[in-house]
Amino acid sequence: MKWPTMILEEDCLKLIDQRQIPGEINYYQASDYQEVIFAIKEMVVRGAPAIGAAAAFGFYLAALKLQDCSAEKFWEGMQNAREELARARPTAVNLLWGIKKMERILQENRELDRPQLLAILLDEARKIVDEDVEINKKLGEWGQEIIPQKAGVLTHCNTGALATAGYGTALGVIRSAQARGKEIEVFVDETRPRMQGARLNAFELLEEGIPATLIVDSAAAVLMRAGKVDVVIVGADRIAANGDTANKIGTFMLSQLASRFQIPFYIAAPLSTVDYDLKTGEEIEIEERDSREITHWEEKPIAPEGITVYNPAFDVTPAADITGIITEKGIVRPPLGEGLRRIAPGGDFS
Amino acid sequence: MKWPTMILEEDCLKLIDQRQIPGEINYYQASDYQEVIFAIKEMVVRGAPAIGAAAAFGFYLAALKLQDCSAEKFWEGMQNAREELARARPTAVNLLWGIKKMERILQENRELDRPQLLAILLDEARKIVDEDVEINKKLGEWGQEIIPQKAGVLTHCNTGALATAGYGTALGVIRSAQARGKEIEVFVDETRPRMQGARLNAFELLEEGIPATLIVDSAAAVLMRAGKVDVVIVGADRIAANGDTANKIGTFMLSQLASRFQIPFYIAAPLSTVDYDLKTGEEIEIEERDSREITHWEEKPIAPEGITVYNPAFDVTPAADITGIITEKGIVRPPLGEGLRRIAPGGDFS
Repeated sequence: MKWPTMILEEDCLKLIDQRQIPGEINYYQASDYQEVIFAIKEMVVRGAPAIGAAAAFGFYLAALKLQDCSAEKFWEGMQNAREELARARPTAVNLLWGIKKMERILQENRELDRPQLLAILLDEARKIVDEDVEINKKLGEWGQEIIPQKAGVLTHCNTGALATAGYGTALGVIRSAQARGKEIEVFVDETRPRMQGARLNAFELLEEGIPATLIVDSAAAVLMRAGKVDVVIVGADRIAANGDTANKIGTFMLSQLASRFQIPFYIAAPLSTVDYDLKTGEEIEIEERDSREITHWEEKPIAPEGITVYNPAFDVTPAADITGIITEKGIVRPPLGEGLRRIAPGGDFS
Repeated sequence: MKWPTMILEEDCLKLIDQRQIPGEINYYQASDYQEVIFAIKEMVVRGAPAIGAAAAFGFYLAALKLQDCSAEKFWEGMQNAREELARARPTAVNLLWGIKKMERILQENRELDRPQLLAILLDEARKIVDEDVEINKKLGEWGQEIIPQKAGVLTHCNTGALATAGYGTALGVIRSAQARGKEIEVFVDETRPRMQGARLNAFELLEEGIPATLIVDSAAAVLMRAGKVDVVIVGADRIAANGDTANKIGTFMLSQLASRFQIPFYIAAPLSTVDYDLKTGEEIEIEERDSREITHWEEKPIAPEGITVYNPAFDVTPAADITGIITEKGIVRPPLGEGLRRIAPGGDFS
């Protein structure tokens, strides 16, 4: 992607405004953490890894704003900022992961003077962004192995450079496979209601010159039956310790159809998406978003006024229906819980 | 519905403009058969039974325009009109059924003078409309038996009064069940790309006071897993002799998910939807519609320019995944081919 997802300056975060793609390329500028929260809530920035990186930078911006305050005000302000950032969206655990990383650096260096502390926080936020790109590239290298030399790949939502600090997760795997000379056709679910597939994934695939065909979400089944899909790869917003995976609404549907047609179904996600504190997917909080995402197109109603709406942003795919989880430390195979434990930070292979 | 789907006058056909619902209620006026073809192609009128009735009236309008012509011009003009009407949309067989019914009346009465012939054709077109409503009510009565006293019913696309000359097929079954005092909650797939679920089905359900919840198509799977769906009922655009059924894109997906979760999956359609000339669903022509239905919202692009699109308007659900076909002559149970044969026009029970 010629346009970076996020640009980290010393006093602000510039985020490509994903609400306007593919129509226009504009950058939203956040100068304090509340503006970062707005950007996350309103989906100026979305995609679990991108949210994590943005929140980490929001944490730094909070410290920057508070730099001249008394110690009491500073620490109280940082606690508020941390709590508010953590509540911006409930499902993607990368958000909490990014904030926790920053919080640890803050606590470890709490004795330093403010300018030093700020410099360290800025470094850490930048490191999170740089590392995310590196992690995605590793993940892509591991993942490309599961894509046949000539393959139809179905994917859902946007999992590319825009959903991350750069390169992408599921789309990163596709990019790595293409870079290895594999002949790929990507089938892109448009991904209602927010159309991340049509607006963002199709955009990135065109930019990268990867052959892609856009479909409505409900057409995936006929492509699978017709033998056009060799593998399904999607991203993740939160993975429980047993491998149950929350991802964009519609992912569970794809997993069930893939199982029906005996098509391998992979999750591609950095380890920061794994929430080892949750035993199973039942514990994952699923965000329900505004009904207007379904009933309106921009300001225009497309459903009758007063209709009840159920608009979960995510669903949970059970570990049993997942062929493997592609991470930066390799591909975790069933039993997923055991595999995830082995590569856990601080675990045997960490 | 307080607004009729179609109003048949002596010199024109008034069709409720389904492209504008729920925003506005306007009637499109067709004074000749070309205007009827436009209305069918552009989906001013849609729904297999409604298309059949509209095409029948278009046939009458063609005769009306040609009434003062020489015999040669009249018969040549009628043949053109019949062929053009038949090509308006390829999948719904009711279109051909309506035209064939009119054609038979025309041929049977070809010796009559023009005014008499026109009167008979007008009568027949009106009869097709009246009978469609009667058929749907019978179908609704048979169908309501399969709905439990307290039930979650999932449906797709619009199958109500608007999709027919009145009352509806799958939605007619739901109306009949509600009229019997059953406690129903309907889950309405929005039905991308044309949004017939959100725009039309939700509208009709609200009008009828039937509790309904609107969802994106890809959320159906999570409702099924959660045990909220007791039965799936959808309509049909063409049913092959063996029971394979073409219906709105997404229907096949629902059938596979219903099978996965052991939820009964019913088709509701008049016998005019059965094409006894086709052995299986493989012979059904599936209409591919303009990619702009997916890439644009009205005039605004929502996908990058140049992206390839696959936009089949329908898919085919195999007979093996259908629990039953609800018709005006009763519910056909597996083996569906045998059951359909038994109630075929001219068959044992016709």
